[in-house]
Amino acid sequence: MTAPIVAVIGGGQLARMMTGPATELGVTLRVLVESQSAAAAAGAHEAVVGLPGDADAVARLLTGATVVTWEHEHIPAAVFEAAGARGIPALPSAAALAHAQDKIVMRTAMDRLGLPNPAWAPVTERADVETFLAAHGGVAVLKTARGGYDGKGVRVITAAADADDWIADLATGGPRLLIEEKVAFERELSAQVARTPSGEVVAYPVVESTQRDGVCAEVIAPAPNLAPGLEARAEALAMTIATELDVVGMLAVELFQVGETIVINELAMRPHNSGHWSMDGAVTSQFEQHLRAVLDLPLGDPTPTAAWTVMVNVLGGSRADLASALPEVPDGGAKIHLYGKNVLPGRKVGHVNVSGSDLPSVLTRARESADIVRDVTPEGGHQ
Amino acid sequence: MTAPIVAVIGGGQLARMMTGPATELGVTLRVLVESQSAAAAAGAHEAVVGLPGDADAVARLLTGATVVTWEHEHIPAAVFEAAGARGIPALPSAAALAHAQDKIVMRTAMDRLGLPNPAWAPVTERADVETFLAAHGGVAVLKTARGGYDGKGVRVITAAADADDWIADLATGGPRLLIEEKVAFERELSAQVARTPSGEVVAYPVVESTQRDGVCAEVIAPAPNLAPGLEARAEALAMTIATELDVVGMLAVELFQVGETIVINELAMRPHNSGHWSMDGAVTSQFEQHLRAVLDLPLGDPTPTAAWTVMVNVLGGSRADLASALPEVPDGGAKIHLYGKNVLPGRKVGHVNVSGSDLPSVLTRARESADIVRDVTPEGGHQ
Repeated sequence: MTAPIVAVIGGGQLARMMTGPATELGVTLRVLVESQSAAAAAGAHEAVVGLPGDADAVARLLTGATVVTWEHEHIPAAVFEAAGARGIPALPSAAALAHAQDKIVMRTAMDRLGLPNPAWAPVTERADVETFLAAHGGVAVLKTARGGYDGKGVRVITAAADADDWIADLATGGPRLLIEEKVAFERELSAQVARTPSGEVVAYPVVESTQRDGVCAEVIAPAPNLAPGLEARAEALAMTIATELDVVGMLAVELFQVGETIVINELAMRPHNSGHWSMDGAVTSQFEQHLRAVLDLPLGDPTPTAAWTVMVNVLGGSRADLASALPEVPDGGAKIHLYGKNVLPGRKVGHVNVSGSDLPSVLTRARESADIVRDVTPEGGHQ
Repeated sequence: MTAPIVAVIGGGQLARMMTGPATELGVTLRVLVESQSAAAAAGAHEAVVGLPGDADAVARLLTGATVVTWEHEHIPAAVFEAAGARGIPALPSAAALAHAQDKIVMRTAMDRLGLPNPAWAPVTERADVETFLAAHGGVAVLKTARGGYDGKGVRVITAAADADDWIADLATGGPRLLIEEKVAFERELSAQVARTPSGEVVAYPVVESTQRDGVCAEVIAPAPNLAPGLEARAEALAMTIATELDVVGMLAVELFQVGETIVINELAMRPHNSGHWSMDGAVTSQFEQHLRAVLDLPLGDPTPTAAWTVMVNVLGGSRADLASALPEVPDGGAKIHLYGKNVLPGRKVGHVNVSGSDLPSVLTRARESADIVRDVTPEGGHQ
């Protein structure tokens, strides 16, 4: 038996959720984890302890690997060099991944491809902010080009003074900045596709995602009341990005819907929170699909298996020991996924999927089960 | 975090396929495996190397376990004693499991419960065989009470002489024997239920299974053209067995259909080959369900997610390295499950599930993909 070895950098829940599909495909999943207690260490076939910047750990990760991939965007250039020196495909590539790492690179590429960006501009000095604010009604979103995640590195501003600290940081080596129109969106959508090195691309249905405090709270698949034309445009846009940027693996394009138009918010080149529904609601989950894609296997069928699947994140609440929730969730159709992480307030520590034919019922059931898991009490910060 | 620890005796594919669901539930799966290369070692959170008869290995398996369960029936009494001494539930219990270990115990219990056995009799001497053959048209099935598996320990006989060697073995400590009517069945069915220590029971749809050379070849879920009354009887029968024998975990009741009647063939108290379809075709797979049952959690919804799911076993064929099949299966809806076992002719080394709304198409697709995986060539022994 010569099982393919997929090496993954990142020890969080996204790598963890690749382990089940890897076992079923007979693929060895080897993860680089910060510690043996990382979420992804449980169930991984092999775990290498170390950080992406640790050359020795990366060397152990790469030895004999068929391919190396990522569950987050923070991949040092040295990793690509080490993989290249060994002839191991590193996917998605550094050139593709740059668009998920750096929002200025991403916006520039979207403009080049003629895809719908919000109004935006790079910021190098205070005058850039003043000019942009004046042109856009005195409100805008200031972002760091790199390092943003779950609402971090993003700030709504109404005056140039709101940007002064980040601009000062910029002068002393802080992250580059960009400013964007504050889109008055009606809702957020996510279009996910998978692509192989051979160029096969498949699209998942476009979903609706709801954020709270900058963190994904729930996802409805497919997005309700989405005009067919809009869905087709969102899918085509994601396929264009995957193909034109040579993305391999899962790609999520986060979108804002404004009336019958969509604009691009962010890109993620990995399994994404907006695709967790597929674990229980599609023929092929995004985690199996990512493995298939980076191994250049024929892609799996992304078709939903139910009319509706709702995913509700379990964000850290009152319950510290999530295992104690398992006996308390009475809904036999609530698919509970726990990440084995320490519970911190608001941290993503699991999710619940519920599928069915009646959306209001599915929504209620998913929310109720997720609330039980996190144990929402007044002290726990019920929203 | 205090994850429940489910200890499993047995290192084959049944334990292996519990690993994915265990990870998602945040349950630690600790398996007793014959070697680190056992099918179940990959993906298990903890693997203890040893045999069920090795007291030290069993002690390591049990340390801190929430519950201990089995993926096969060959569990020594000492294991139950060791678990009992530590206050660890051992499920299904020795008393329940006896009915899956010993066909005489099983037949006796089915008679006591008034459930449909074929005609049968224990065999202690040649005269028992002669009498039974004379009463049943000169043909019968001779079975060892214990140790039979995938057609082993079962023999169709037409003369008492056909039984002489096993009767001679019996005199020297060989397995006890029973003789059964050779049922002229139209097809084989399997009724699966899950039951918790608290007494919750849920039933999966009754499926049709096809054996070749005594080994399960394929399963259609649900069984086509099954009269509703017959399905209800099969389900009720399995629920009665689970409840009356105090089975905990998954129970499979293998049945023969003869016209509008059913008779019981065998019992299995664990996930079963006839339930592999549920991994991709039901809201809750039999592997998650077994974990839920032995942990006394609320049971999962066993409802199918498609009109039809067909499971075709991958029996060892020409292909030695099954991973090499992954690029060759073009059907994106073929869910491939490989067991990480060395390929031997006819050995169960994987299976393929396909779901859909048109049964003939689903059957063809599942067979074609399984044939590709095993690489059926004339030398490979295409049946």
